[in-house]
Amino acid sequence: MDRYRKETLERLVARLAVGVGVPAQDAALFASALADADLHGVSTHGISRLSIYLRRIQEGLIDPAARLTADREAGSVLALNAGNGLGQVQARKALDRLIPLARQNGVAAATIRNSQHFGALSWYCNAAAEQRMVLLAMSNCEPAMSPAGGYEPFFGTNPIAASFPTRRSFPVKIDLATSIVARGNIIAAQKRNQPIPEGWALDPEGEPTTDAQAALLGTVLTMAGHKGYALALMVELFSGVLSGAAIGSQVGSMYKNLDRPQNVGHFFCLFDIASFLDYEEYLRRMDETLDQIKSSKRRSGVDEILVPGERSARIAEQNQSQGIPLAPETLAELQHWCRQLKIAFDCPEVTACPTS
Amino acid sequence: MDRYRKETLERLVARLAVGVGVPAQDAALFASALADADLHGVSTHGISRLSIYLRRIQEGLIDPAARLTADREAGSVLALNAGNGLGQVQARKALDRLIPLARQNGVAAATIRNSQHFGALSWYCNAAAEQRMVLLAMSNCEPAMSPAGGYEPFFGTNPIAASFPTRRSFPVKIDLATSIVARGNIIAAQKRNQPIPEGWALDPEGEPTTDAQAALLGTVLTMAGHKGYALALMVELFSGVLSGAAIGSQVGSMYKNLDRPQNVGHFFCLFDIASFLDYEEYLRRMDETLDQIKSSKRRSGVDEILVPGERSARIAEQNQSQGIPLAPETLAELQHWCRQLKIAFDCPEVTACPTS
Repeated sequence: MDRYRKETLERLVARLAVGVGVPAQDAALFASALADADLHGVSTHGISRLSIYLRRIQEGLIDPAARLTADREAGSVLALNAGNGLGQVQARKALDRLIPLARQNGVAAATIRNSQHFGALSWYCNAAAEQRMVLLAMSNCEPAMSPAGGYEPFFGTNPIAASFPTRRSFPVKIDLATSIVARGNIIAAQKRNQPIPEGWALDPEGEPTTDAQAALLGTVLTMAGHKGYALALMVELFSGVLSGAAIGSQVGSMYKNLDRPQNVGHFFCLFDIASFLDYEEYLRRMDETLDQIKSSKRRSGVDEILVPGERSARIAEQNQSQGIPLAPETLAELQHWCRQLKIAFDCPEVTACPTS
Repeated sequence: MDRYRKETLERLVARLAVGVGVPAQDAALFASALADADLHGVSTHGISRLSIYLRRIQEGLIDPAARLTADREAGSVLALNAGNGLGQVQARKALDRLIPLARQNGVAAATIRNSQHFGALSWYCNAAAEQRMVLLAMSNCEPAMSPAGGYEPFFGTNPIAASFPTRRSFPVKIDLATSIVARGNIIAAQKRNQPIPEGWALDPEGEPTTDAQAALLGTVLTMAGHKGYALALMVELFSGVLSGAAIGSQVGSMYKNLDRPQNVGHFFCLFDIASFLDYEEYLRRMDETLDQIKSSKRRSGVDEILVPGERSARIAEQNQSQGIPLAPETLAELQHWCRQLKIAFDCPEVTACPTS
C-alpha cells in the first residue's frame, strides 16, 4: 500500500469536507479525527469512512454546518443536541464544553443526541488524557447485534472506551466494541471480497456464517456471550435511552439507510484526576501498575506483555515517520471525490518522511 | 437445601456481626447486603462469605467500627477512606453521601480506598435505581487474573455494574465480572470438591486446569480475551490507581492473607436521570427498549429473551415467598458461629411462607 504523510491527508480530507459545505474550522476537526484513526492503525474508523460521510452530506442526511445546542444544562451535566451534524465535530465540541465543568466539579457528564457515527472513541479519550483527565465514552450505533438468544439486529456494536494519561509516550487506551469483533472489520472484509472467520456472525436466518455480506445483513455476535449482551445494553441505555437519541433498531444505518438521518446517541463522562488524588501521585501509581504488568511472567510463546494502547502507539509512531498506508480502495475513493468536487489530489506518496 | 426467610437470616447475620463488634446500625446494613445477594440467587456473594468476614474481624484484619472519612471532598467528587471497615457498610454510606451531590449537580463520583471485598455490586446499584439514579460501580479485588499473555495473578475479577430503573417490577441490572466466570463460582466448586469446566482457568504453571484448587492458586481467564483484559485494567485504574487503594497483586486475599488487610478500592459514579431528561420520558423510552428486546425474534430452542436482571428478579420473588435456600456448608458455618459467639440459632426452616 502507498503511504502518505498524515498532514497531507488531513489537509486533503479537510478540503473535501469544505467542498461539501463543512465550515473550515469544523472540517479541520473532522479531518483530524479521521487521520488520527489511520495514524493509529484503526483504518476502519478513518479515511475509509470519508466517502459515506460526504455522500450523506450531499444527500442532505447530515447537516454540514449544524450547531451544537443544549436541551438541558445544569450543574455538571449537559444534555446536548448535535443537530444532525458530523459526529466527530459535535462530540469534540461537547468534550470542549465538558472540560471546564470537570475542572470545576471534578466530574462532568454529557449525552449527545441527533448525531452520527463519530469514529474512534479513543480520539476523544486521548484528547481528554492530554488535559490530565479521564473520559469514559460510549456510543450506540447502527443495529448489528441481537440480545442473547435472538437473531434480529438490535444493538449496535456499542463501544466503550477510556484513556488514562501516563508518564510514558502513550496513554493507556481502552477502546472496545462489545461485539466479538468491530463491525468495521466485517465491512473491510466485504470491501475486499474476503470471508470472515467462523464465530463472528449469524446470517439473516440466525445461522452461523463466514460470508461478510451475509454477516452485514444478519447479526454480529456479542463478545463473551451474555456478558457482552449486558454491556451492549448498558451502552445503549447510557447513549441511546438517556440521551433522547434513536434506540436500538431505530438507529439509522450509515450505509443502508440513505433516506433518513442516523440519530446516533453518545455518552461522555469526564473525570478530573487531580480532584481524586495528587496528579504526581497518580502518575507514580500508574507507572508502578504498568511496570508490574509489563514484567508479568509470560506464557510460553509470548514475547512481550502489551498494555492496551501500546501497540497502536507504536503503529502511530511508525506511520508518523514512514507515512500512513492507504488501502487502494480508499485511495480510489479520495481520487473520485477530488474529481467530483474539483479539488486537486495533491498527495505525494512517501517512502519515508522525517518525523515532524 | 433447607429454606429460610430472608428476614430471619438477616436478623441472625446482624446479631453475629454485632457479636464481633460491629455497631448495630452497621450490622443491619451488612446483613441486608448479604441476605439480598442470597435472595437474588447470588449466594457466592451472600451469607457463604459471612464466615470469612467474621474471622477477619476477629483476627483484627477488619475494623468492625471503622469510620468513613474523606481524603478529598470538592465539587461533585469524594475521595473516601473506608478505614479498613466492612466494605458493604462503608460503600453503602459512600453511596448515601453521593446521592445529594448527584441530585444537586446531576453527576457525582467517589473513590473508596482501604476497603474489603464488598459483595455484589448490584446491591448498591439497585439502591441507586430506587432513587431514580444510575450508579456505575466498579471494584478491584484480590489477584486472580493475569494480563493477556501472562499467567501470574495480577487483576482481580474486577467487576463492573450499573442498574437502571424501569416501570417493571425489577431494574435492568448489569453486573459482571471481567473474568470468564465469577471467582465465587470456583470457590463454590472447591467447597463442594467439584471440578470446574475447561476454559475457565490456568494452573500456577500457566496450563489449563479443571481443578478448582489449582485454579484458585493459578489464574482465572479474562472474558473475551484481550477485551476482558482491557476492561479489567480500566476497572483497576478507576478503582485501584485513582482511589489510592492497593493495586493489582498488592490487594490482599480475604482467604489466603490472614496477616494483612485487603486494601481493596471501589469506584462509584452516580447519575441523576432527571438531569438528563424528564424522568417520565426516560421511563417511556426504557419501556420501549425492553419491549423491543423481549419481542426479538428468537433462535431455535430459545423460549424467551431475557433482560439482564430479569432472571435474578424471578429468583428473588421465589425466594421471598418460599424462603432462601442455604447450602449445607453455609448452614454449618452459621451454626458454628452461633456456638462460638453464644448466640441462639433461631432460624426455623420454612417450606413456604407468605410473601411479606
